[in-house]
Amino acid sequence: MQRLARRWRRQGVRVALVPTMGYLHTGHLSLVKRARQLAGQHGQVVVSIYVNPTQFGPREDFSRYPRDLKRDLKLCRGEGVAVVFAPSDAEMYPRWGEATDPAMRDEDARPTRFSTLVTEENLSRLMEGASRPAHFRGVTTVVAKLFNIVLPDMAVFGAKDYQQAVIIKRMVADLNFPVKIVVAPTVRERDGLAMSSRNKYLSADERVQATILHRAIQRARRAVRSKAVSAARLKAELKKFITSEPLARVDYVEFFDSDTLRPAVVVRRGTHMALAVFLGKTRLIDNGQL
Amino acid sequence: MQRLARRWRRQGVRVALVPTMGYLHTGHLSLVKRARQLAGQHGQVVVSIYVNPTQFGPREDFSRYPRDLKRDLKLCRGEGVAVVFAPSDAEMYPRWGEATDPAMRDEDARPTRFSTLVTEENLSRLMEGASRPAHFRGVTTVVAKLFNIVLPDMAVFGAKDYQQAVIIKRMVADLNFPVKIVVAPTVRERDGLAMSSRNKYLSADERVQATILHRAIQRARRAVRSKAVSAARLKAELKKFITSEPLARVDYVEFFDSDTLRPAVVVRRGTHMALAVFLGKTRLIDNGQL
Repeated sequence: MQRLARRWRRQGVRVALVPTMGYLHTGHLSLVKRARQLAGQHGQVVVSIYVNPTQFGPREDFSRYPRDLKRDLKLCRGEGVAVVFAPSDAEMYPRWGEATDPAMRDEDARPTRFSTLVTEENLSRLMEGASRPAHFRGVTTVVAKLFNIVLPDMAVFGAKDYQQAVIIKRMVADLNFPVKIVVAPTVRERDGLAMSSRNKYLSADERVQATILHRAIQRARRAVRSKAVSAARLKAELKKFITSEPLARVDYVEFFDSDTLRPAVVVRRGTHMALAVFLGKTRLIDNGQL
Repeated sequence: MQRLARRWRRQGVRVALVPTMGYLHTGHLSLVKRARQLAGQHGQVVVSIYVNPTQFGPREDFSRYPRDLKRDLKLCRGEGVAVVFAPSDAEMYPRWGEATDPAMRDEDARPTRFSTLVTEENLSRLMEGASRPAHFRGVTTVVAKLFNIVLPDMAVFGAKDYQQAVIIKRMVADLNFPVKIVVAPTVRERDGLAMSSRNKYLSADERVQATILHRAIQRARRAVRSKAVSAARLKAELKKFITSEPLARVDYVEFFDSDTLRPAVVVRRGTHMALAVFLGKTRLIDNGQL
């Protein structure tokens, strides 16, 4: 992949990357279409498909995360994608997770043990980072790797993972990656549920009740349409609203500034809202500017 | 710098980077000559000069580290360097070190606070990392930034900072930077003292006694010329030898594998040795393969 990327670079080919974990749905394909547009007629689109183990917690759904590479490849072909980059764990993280005590005396000392991490230390502590401690460290590390392997001019991320997109932008600015980050809007089902590979986990009842995330955002939007309101009060009100669905359990509801993610004390038009809600065992997220 | 680097890239110009903290001496210039050679006739050499604050500890010599940009520029010009990249702290680390509590409610929320770090978590704990806890985190972070700003095809590091060179190679492999790392040999004064900008701190007496680092390496080399010896015993013997110089105080003496830095129990020909010694208040390092 990197050899091809370097060749493209020498030829002045513009490259747009769409990093995904595969099991592609219409949301992903909207990112690919955006990338296709940004790359232009003479540019190339690369889709990476990699269920990145370092961004999953030990009790999370890494092993049961849905995968269907054959179908994904067909969908990518249909969108004019030049390359699907789908590496193995052994290529991405050689010998990661083995004992790494540096003082260990090992005569069979093999030098290829993965040990470098990229961490964003500020925005990563909030919301998804509070609920999933090592999550963003895994995300920033794998995205840094993908940028260095694919050498894109731009990369397209979905607004559904809003905090992730802000953190990636922060990483790109801080580490000076020569990559433009584009955030494309969330694609929703007809009833408002944000598209996600994890929707597949939902039972029929959970699926019906899962629209509560989107409805909570709309409710907040109405609440601040003509006046500013207390974040604490609105949060309490929304939590009650969400748990009116019997299968829903709130992980968090937060209000914050769109650019800095700084928590808002007062919620106004333009304040950003994000939430995570369990439907049974499935954890879903959504967000929107109010 | 990045704009120029991207232009060079489009033109297929080969770029070699020499990252330095300035106050250039013959050792640095040997790296520049090597870079000049590697870049080839149509390539370009970039020297970065930046006393990187994040790699100094709070009680270390950041503020008194010697600086002479005017002289450095003249020396670089003499070596055919295309660009000296000498950024400011504000450019490299916007608002770094300010309060970064993400939960802080700040209505004046400016989004440009540096917060991304690159850490190597294994090799960085040994030797220099044990004595200087955040040192290598600062090194890997700034080198990642320099690689993304200068976009070099290769970068030349000095063997004098041997552990640093191994950690940079590890980072490049782990994060897939498209940069070849070249390690060039240590340049020494006539009496064996490894060239270093910090030698300037030494008093006349300290300067004379500072050759003890090099002499300790030579002594170890002789000790293992024809037989393997116990690391513990050799270490004890060398510590005694070093402190025979009244102004010398040992920080560490270590034996390890050249590639993995894994500590050696038994020292043989080919084992690597590194040491750090205080001469008065000045801390010097040296290393060599035995």
